[in-house]
Amino acid sequence: MTAVGVFLMGVGGIGSLVAKLLLQDSRFALRGAADTDAAKSGRDLGDLLQMGKLGIEVASRPLEALEASDAQVVIHATTSFLPRAFPEVMACVQRGKHVVSTCEELAYPWARYPELASQLDQEAKAHGVRVLGGGVNPGMVMDLLPIILAANVGKITHVKVRRVVDLAGRRPQLQRKAGLGLTPEEFQVRLQERAIGHVGLLESAHLIASALGWHLQEVREQMTPLLAPRPMRHGAYRLSPGQVAGFRQELVGIAGDEPVLRMELVMALEPPDAMDAIEIEGSARVRAIFLGGIPGDVATASLMLQWAWVVACYPGPMGLMTVRDLPLWPRQMGG
Amino acid sequence: MTAVGVFLMGVGGIGSLVAKLLLQDSRFALRGAADTDAAKSGRDLGDLLQMGKLGIEVASRPLEALEASDAQVVIHATTSFLPRAFPEVMACVQRGKHVVSTCEELAYPWARYPELASQLDQEAKAHGVRVLGGGVNPGMVMDLLPIILAANVGKITHVKVRRVVDLAGRRPQLQRKAGLGLTPEEFQVRLQERAIGHVGLLESAHLIASALGWHLQEVREQMTPLLAPRPMRHGAYRLSPGQVAGFRQELVGIAGDEPVLRMELVMALEPPDAMDAIEIEGSARVRAIFLGGIPGDVATASLMLQWAWVVACYPGPMGLMTVRDLPLWPRQMGG
Repeated sequence: MTAVGVFLMGVGGIGSLVAKLLLQDSRFALRGAADTDAAKSGRDLGDLLQMGKLGIEVASRPLEALEASDAQVVIHATTSFLPRAFPEVMACVQRGKHVVSTCEELAYPWARYPELASQLDQEAKAHGVRVLGGGVNPGMVMDLLPIILAANVGKITHVKVRRVVDLAGRRPQLQRKAGLGLTPEEFQVRLQERAIGHVGLLESAHLIASALGWHLQEVREQMTPLLAPRPMRHGAYRLSPGQVAGFRQELVGIAGDEPVLRMELVMALEPPDAMDAIEIEGSARVRAIFLGGIPGDVATASLMLQWAWVVACYPGPMGLMTVRDLPLWPRQMGG
Repeated sequence: MTAVGVFLMGVGGIGSLVAKLLLQDSRFALRGAADTDAAKSGRDLGDLLQMGKLGIEVASRPLEALEASDAQVVIHATTSFLPRAFPEVMACVQRGKHVVSTCEELAYPWARYPELASQLDQEAKAHGVRVLGGGVNPGMVMDLLPIILAANVGKITHVKVRRVVDLAGRRPQLQRKAGLGLTPEEFQVRLQERAIGHVGLLESAHLIASALGWHLQEVREQMTPLLAPRPMRHGAYRLSPGQVAGFRQELVGIAGDEPVLRMELVMALEPPDAMDAIEIEGSARVRAIFLGGIPGDVATASLMLQWAWVVACYPGPMGLMTVRDLPLWPRQMGG
């Protein structure tokens, strides 16, 4: 079997991890990389990853570099927000490339951006490629896994998902997104700017609801800063009591006048109960616990690669996909 | 969307559960049922299910009844063994029907029966239909879930799966298959006849190994009766100490001279630790626990229906499929 040619658009925290996994995986060949960050572009990717020269220069102009490469799939990791990702993804599609993206809002774009979703779908179909948004969350812990478990319980009445992430040891970007060290007032300001919090909870909710045939008449979201109860230190952070040490983000989905879907995401420094938990109720009951939680950054990078392989090799339908629409580990079927 | 027409071939324990779930699910229309058991055939299916007349007679001649129906999918639940299922499944395929089967050996038939697998695949492709073997196990707990979790850990080095099932409250057929009440000597005799134990562990092992690109140079299987430590009673069973109260079935898969895959299935009366556990080691680690275990019979029936919907509606490739080869909850994509 021929290796799948991959182009990395964005070599930040996740893009770098993807590169490292990709280079150990014989299913893939790295065909290029780009990043508009002046601190990265022009450098050898291997130097950037601190693993010795690779002979692949990080290009500053992604599309020119992509055109010069013979990649089949672009792994896109530049932004959480679809309006920003949209022109980049469209440009890749128009060059006949599949796109797998960490853009959280692309995980189920019909919810917030039906018009952009429709354009992406049409363009991807016209070029015979796939576009897929995913990662560990959205894309796995709070949507795909609950959906797969839900298939085991017959008639489904309630879904509950809880993810508690320990920010210690996670990438600085995520720690900033959690608001570490802010005052509660600063937290509220950043929240209004959407500079804080997890992007993708609404997308996960719609991934679940649309699978289960639930029409969500109302979705309630709530965001609460978690304040340091005592002086805390981690890496460069020195938190005084009362400063922000994380957040709790909650979502309740109402269907048939009943709260059928409950989702809770906690990201905090040293929470006592880091784990993922999924509970499905219906004709039977499934309760799953993932001890310590599914490891965020590695999982996202690992899943990006897996989906890159699937979108390139699986002989099914083309267009805008969700993580629900393709198998994760299909056999080679001559596609 | 039009309801998917389903024909039930076999209305034993699982087939009956499938029927009950199907009748509550607007995605499906029940188009017929058959069972060669003289105690069932000729009766109204609703009477058999103790839920009032349905106007569907359980036919004694499955193929004649199938031909007279306009079902798209056959849910086949008659046997664990592929040589026995093969002519039935082939006959359905040759009538242009998709087949979703609880036949454990059909979950990954290339392992034991490469020739039958090849014939099924060719015939299914020739008729533009899909054949899929699955259920809660094989099909979910000990293969699909480990595979999906494995996609989260980057380079994968070890997979460990443990399922402990409490036989109390499970269907009598399963209790018999576990050898309840036998002497250790009788257990060994039945084991030789393959009348005892779980069928499908080898298939699960191959589903995992083939996904992860592991070439299993050796597969070691071991089966141990678990003896009642004290007098036990359950339903019609009265066990004296030393009589069989269940079994432990173990499998170790060796690749690259290393035990990379460990699977353990315990089925017993009132085990202290009924649960499923999955552990994946690699670039990162995932440890999952399913409290109380994924509920066996309901899950199998529920999954049969879900796959019936997918094989009928998903616009991807045709032929002999495994649970790895199709998404479990795809969006409607006009297929």
